[in-house]
Amino acid sequence: MPKVVDHNERRTRIAEALLRVAGEHGLEAVSLRHVATEAGVTSGMVQHYFRTKDEMMAFALEVVRERGEVRLSAAAAALGPDPTPRQLLRTIVAEVLPVDEPRRVDGRVALAFLAYTAVRPEVAAPVRADTKAMLEFMAERIRAGGPRPGVDPERAAVGLLALMEGLGVHLLGGHYEPATALAALDSYLDTIFE
Amino acid sequence: MPKVVDHNERRTRIAEALLRVAGEHGLEAVSLRHVATEAGVTSGMVQHYFRTKDEMMAFALEVVRERGEVRLSAAAAALGPDPTPRQLLRTIVAEVLPVDEPRRVDGRVALAFLAYTAVRPEVAAPVRADTKAMLEFMAERIRAGGPRPGVDPERAAVGLLALMEGLGVHLLGGHYEPATALAALDSYLDTIFE
Repeated sequence: MPKVVDHNERRTRIAEALLRVAGEHGLEAVSLRHVATEAGVTSGMVQHYFRTKDEMMAFALEVVRERGEVRLSAAAAALGPDPTPRQLLRTIVAEVLPVDEPRRVDGRVALAFLAYTAVRPEVAAPVRADTKAMLEFMAERIRAGGPRPGVDPERAAVGLLALMEGLGVHLLGGHYEPATALAALDSYLDTIFE
Repeated sequence: MPKVVDHNERRTRIAEALLRVAGEHGLEAVSLRHVATEAGVTSGMVQHYFRTKDEMMAFALEVVRERGEVRLSAAAAALGPDPTPRQLLRTIVAEVLPVDEPRRVDGRVALAFLAYTAVRPEVAAPVRADTKAMLEFMAERIRAGGPRPGVDPERAAVGLLALMEGLGVHLLGGHYEPATALAALDSYLDTIFE
């Protein structure tokens, strides 16, 4: 019986090679040949699965998003059955921040993707959808958590998500220590919740 | 009399070509040949001024930082002789946000540089120094502006700078409108100042 090729597994393997290259050397190092070498396959094989670099990037972005979802769900589940909205939001943001090496690799890839999609708006649709969903989730949790008088949940959610992004960028650049970022996060949450 | 070549002018011209390429097509499109074509010079000329891509990138980063400083100084001066600390901080952050096309081009370049320096920590020193100086300036202005009780000026400054960065990234990606980002900025300033 001929071996059945798991095409999705192969695509994922190539995408993961792309992510390792991007995480170590930056997105401008991502070439067909470089990715093929890293994945241990031929350039022809990579071209068989991805006709263009954009296609390969879009698929790799999917892999990163799935990884992120799995990680966030695990962190939320680890909080137990009834976390307060503040605990949940704090956990989610802290989970994403690049405070250790695995998260730094993912963070560098995410930053590279942001730069990539900023000049290719057509590839950015899934990222925009994630932002929208995350803003709705955060606003809903802020509303449920009993915000301080005068706090607008929608605006506070936009601020919290932007804070997460900005702290992540500054941590990746080594601009300050993780403790500094976490203290700024807690101060921000203090302004939202009683 | 032989014409004196203004080397700094030539270097700047090449760096500006690099910035246009990066702003339009992303940093991974920045090649020696592409930059030479954009600058209207030969590849040999580019190599005469910059031995490596890293050298060219570092110089272009300097050009971006100088442009940013000029723009911020002009915006601060336009506020008149005695702006309140809140007005000054609001103006500085709003000035940097990519709310129109020229600022979007600069923003895309800045984002590309962040991604580039995240995998090359040795190039990131000037960016780290900028962050440090900006955090000190912001904390000092927050302290001078009479913050609300319980607000720690240093932490609030880390939050404000991260908010600026994150709002900028989300605006570049078209995740929401400029008005949404400015409303989130004003809400954040409301939590700092009485």
